[in-house]
Amino acid sequence: MAEPKTNELMEKIVSLCKRRGFIYQSSEIYGGINGFWDYGPLGAELKRNVRECWWRWMVHRREDVVGLDATIIMHPNIWKASGHVDTFSDPMCDCLLTKKRFRADQIEPQSGIVHHYTGARNPLTGREIQEPYAVLLAPGKPPESARKTAVQFYRERGLGKEGPVELLGERTEKVENSQRFNPENGSLLTEPRPFNLMFKTYVGPVADEENVAYLRPETAQAIFAQFKNVLETSRMKVPFGIAQMGKAFRNEVTPRNFTFRSREFEQMELEFFIKPDEAIEAQAGAVAQVGASGHPGEPQPNWGWQAWHKYWVEERIRFYESLGLPRTRLEEYWQKPEELAHYAKATVDILYQFPFGTQELEGIAARGDFDLSQHQKHSGKSMEVFDEEVRTAWKNLPEEKRAAMQRRWVEEKVAALLKKGVGEADARAQAELAAQQYFDKLARGSYIPHVIEPSAGVDRLVLALICNAYHEEEAVDEKGKKETRVILRLHPRVAPIKVAVFPLLKNKPELVAKAREVYQMLRSEMVAFYDEAGSIGRRYARQDEAGTPFCVTIDFDTLGETPELKDTVTLRHRDTAEQERVRIAELLPRLQAALR
Amino acid sequence: MAEPKTNELMEKIVSLCKRRGFIYQSSEIYGGINGFWDYGPLGAELKRNVRECWWRWMVHRREDVVGLDATIIMHPNIWKASGHVDTFSDPMCDCLLTKKRFRADQIEPQSGIVHHYTGARNPLTGREIQEPYAVLLAPGKPPESARKTAVQFYRERGLGKEGPVELLGERTEKVENSQRFNPENGSLLTEPRPFNLMFKTYVGPVADEENVAYLRPETAQAIFAQFKNVLETSRMKVPFGIAQMGKAFRNEVTPRNFTFRSREFEQMELEFFIKPDEAIEAQAGAVAQVGASGHPGEPQPNWGWQAWHKYWVEERIRFYESLGLPRTRLEEYWQKPEELAHYAKATVDILYQFPFGTQELEGIAARGDFDLSQHQKHSGKSMEVFDEEVRTAWKNLPEEKRAAMQRRWVEEKVAALLKKGVGEADARAQAELAAQQYFDKLARGSYIPHVIEPSAGVDRLVLALICNAYHEEEAVDEKGKKETRVILRLHPRVAPIKVAVFPLLKNKPELVAKAREVYQMLRSEMVAFYDEAGSIGRRYARQDEAGTPFCVTIDFDTLGETPELKDTVTLRHRDTAEQERVRIAELLPRLQAALR
Repeated sequence: MAEPKTNELMEKIVSLCKRRGFIYQSSEIYGGINGFWDYGPLGAELKRNVRECWWRWMVHRREDVVGLDATIIMHPNIWKASGHVDTFSDPMCDCLLTKKRFRADQIEPQSGIVHHYTGARNPLTGREIQEPYAVLLAPGKPPESARKTAVQFYRERGLGKEGPVELLGERTEKVENSQRFNPENGSLLTEPRPFNLMFKTYVGPVADEENVAYLRPETAQAIFAQFKNVLETSRMKVPFGIAQMGKAFRNEVTPRNFTFRSREFEQMELEFFIKPDEAIEAQAGAVAQVGASGHPGEPQPNWGWQAWHKYWVEERIRFYESLGLPRTRLEEYWQKPEELAHYAKATVDILYQFPFGTQELEGIAARGDFDLSQHQKHSGKSMEVFDEEVRTAWKNLPEEKRAAMQRRWVEEKVAALLKKGVGEADARAQAELAAQQYFDKLARGSYIPHVIEPSAGVDRLVLALICNAYHEEEAVDEKGKKETRVILRLHPRVAPIKVAVFPLLKNKPELVAKAREVYQMLRSEMVAFYDEAGSIGRRYARQDEAGTPFCVTIDFDTLGETPELKDTVTLRHRDTAEQERVRIAELLPRLQAALR
Repeated sequence: MAEPKTNELMEKIVSLCKRRGFIYQSSEIYGGINGFWDYGPLGAELKRNVRECWWRWMVHRREDVVGLDATIIMHPNIWKASGHVDTFSDPMCDCLLTKKRFRADQIEPQSGIVHHYTGARNPLTGREIQEPYAVLLAPGKPPESARKTAVQFYRERGLGKEGPVELLGERTEKVENSQRFNPENGSLLTEPRPFNLMFKTYVGPVADEENVAYLRPETAQAIFAQFKNVLETSRMKVPFGIAQMGKAFRNEVTPRNFTFRSREFEQMELEFFIKPDEAIEAQAGAVAQVGASGHPGEPQPNWGWQAWHKYWVEERIRFYESLGLPRTRLEEYWQKPEELAHYAKATVDILYQFPFGTQELEGIAARGDFDLSQHQKHSGKSMEVFDEEVRTAWKNLPEEKRAAMQRRWVEEKVAALLKKGVGEADARAQAELAAQQYFDKLARGSYIPHVIEPSAGVDRLVLALICNAYHEEEAVDEKGKKETRVILRLHPRVAPIKVAVFPLLKNKPELVAKAREVYQMLRSEMVAFYDEAGSIGRRYARQDEAGTPFCVTIDFDTLGETPELKDTVTLRHRDTAEQERVRIAELLPRLQAALR
């Protein structure tokens, strides 16, 4: 059957999520709270499974990654160092008339005639206000409506509710695609001002500037702040990674697309620390060249940042595939040089084709040593590591090789500074100085590690999994009526319930007893659900909708009515509706294999 | 060996936690932030295991509990309904001189002579301030020092830095154990004022009263707010429970005892919804009597709130035992009637003997229908369930039984109202009216469920597990020097690393290859750690300190040097240091059995 159209499809998914207890609106009985979503019984399990799979893939499966579980509220200087206090903001403007706030870059562009005024006065009292104001009128609207709006504006600015108002200096102007006016009433907006997206609070009994704190807008910064502690207590050596999952908060102006862009969300982030390319070159003679496509294979000692970056992009795509998202619905977007943040060497977005558009699931950024350097600068604590291998390698490097590396490094630095508008002589002096410091340290085996950051969102992934799993099928119900049934084809790894167990009939104690026995056996190893209510068909349909990959039915053959079928059950597969006969003793290993 | 003394012991535990990467101070490189703690690699795994065990015990192991995963920021009316906006506060007072804030009930009581003043004036300018002030002097201190403090106070109140100050109306008074004075300078404090412990923030682009929101101070309220959604989408029937784990925040005035009382912490809460006792009595004829001690066994249809409460207390103690906390270090504290919150029918605290005192791990409260009723009142949404069984039972109840139940209910209500100071006639009228409404609904099978709430803290449990596991042992190192070694006897279920695998020597490729092979086999099923650095003794010691219950060593016998020992390894047990020879093929099932 053809899939339903985009918006209709999203509506159906939202409705399924509510109906089956995957996702509810937060605080729904109080009218909800915009940008916040709760996970119900099935959603909570699905989300748990997603987290668990990520942790297993990123931490337990590897020898070079350890975990961290840091607080949401941290010292505010962390967000100064990271740049969030200064630059993590959206441009906002307010309607001069109603005070309503808009995100400046999301205002619908409008065209028409602008009526400008220089001020207004009350001819009876002589009171005058000199303040420019303007109203945009859509083509064909009477000028009177602009004047009415302007009068209202000047009344509120001090001309009072009563009495006549005379507008001053009216002139008109034609504009096209302007974002300077309130689309709802045509009123001029204030100039855009930055609005910081971090939620702010106060720690301790006194709410003053000294005690300001923020809810973390990302989990990553705690990893940088605790880098040295982890390095010193975990016996890890660069290259290695620190992983963290947890809530993050952004005071989004316009939360949208269901759980995709919400104000409270959960992240899964890895910071993978690597040696700078110069250290690799000193050790391995040359830095590995990266092929254009495909997984670069097992990590090698000659990998520089490009190989590691490519490696993590491919690892992450493999992860999504392991949860059932097909590569055909994923897109890999390499940010263009002009799109990159100033510290980023490369960033790849992994996008998923959501019904509401192809949107980011994860970003994988090569961030150089920016973050650790910032924290070193702001905290005064060294973020350098000492690396005996690098020291030895440097010592053994021929002098001309050292000089060549240093020259290349200087040229790159000079080029970067020139691009920033620094004069040639200054650029060279700065670069030479920086090079001397950097290579002196390297010679002693010291450097600030560089980092590759795969950063994913739990809620986005859960939503992608649900969207990807959603299927409809026409079926005929018990009364011969046509109906549309939903099948949620979740990968068994993430499915909230792994197996449902049914006695064929609920009023036959032998069937119920046997079904309970099978249920007890299965639930000790996986999340299982027991159901005896309604026809078998309805019970299958309910599990299909919940995404349960397997159903097991106990019937009279199980009890031995057909002797050769004794102790076998019907194993029914969600995606194909196929049923097969399986020995009870084989059930557990069969299901466990499918869940791996 | 004798255990070290209390404070010394806590210091050692804190130091171990830092040294081995269990727990770090949050934002340490910025000087830390009081009341916030991060979990390092080992701590993050330990905490994950604790959460996982709780979820398994409370949700997956049961058929009558489902999960929820709600947001930290919810609609602010939730906290009005719950009473947190009005009453979740500590009494605070400020020093009138330095403005320093104190928790009123935690001020060290002091005795001495109070010097009272009615005001002060500058005799030159004639300027006068009429404001009472007082200073407490410790016995034997010269009155001059009180006067000096008072002068300082009046100067700051407007008499200025310069010029003479004449104190007015001095009189003295002897006080004992007063909490009205700043212990640091003797200055009078302000009257205690409530200081709300909820962290406050603003949602949306405008920071005004309309957009106030709070970080949840407990996870429980979301369960009540989503009760109807869960009921309607999960096919559960009362009695059933909803479980939630997650972060909660309290702006504690004095965070203390390491992670025990922190400002950001993690809770594990269950709300178990039950029928009111009258419904049970109608169905079962009588409500079950509860024995004084011991587990009441499997849930029964005739259980009223007392049996359920007792059941959950025992279940929770069993849970703690299942993680290795011995019953001898746990205490069960039944709150006295006068200690109970006004809505609570009974509350039991489960306490653990921490080195800093016997303190609460969990509270198990029978909260009646207070919470759901409050949300019904504040949201205007019904929190009643319809229960066909209750309707039928009521219909079949003899009229005299109904009347007797109603009379008893009225008498209990009257008694409660009289205790509150309501007059006899009023009390009776109110009780009769309430009874009529309540029993009319019950007759139609409708009621607001009552609730039993076992509420535990993740961080407290983690700390209790570490404290309980901490042991010291005198040992002799490789050079024959005596040293104190730490053994962390964590239960295998919660231990961060389950097994460590070592080749006897790292420079024998056959040993390393075999050890890697065993390691790969084990890590596919559990968290395993590979280590080849240092002597075997040091490697054992490192794992003892990390709480790893098992170590596996691959030696020449494994490779076949002693033919009958081929393919066997040394399995070393942390707590006894015993070593046994185990076949590689038996290793996985042996360890898996120990982890169950």
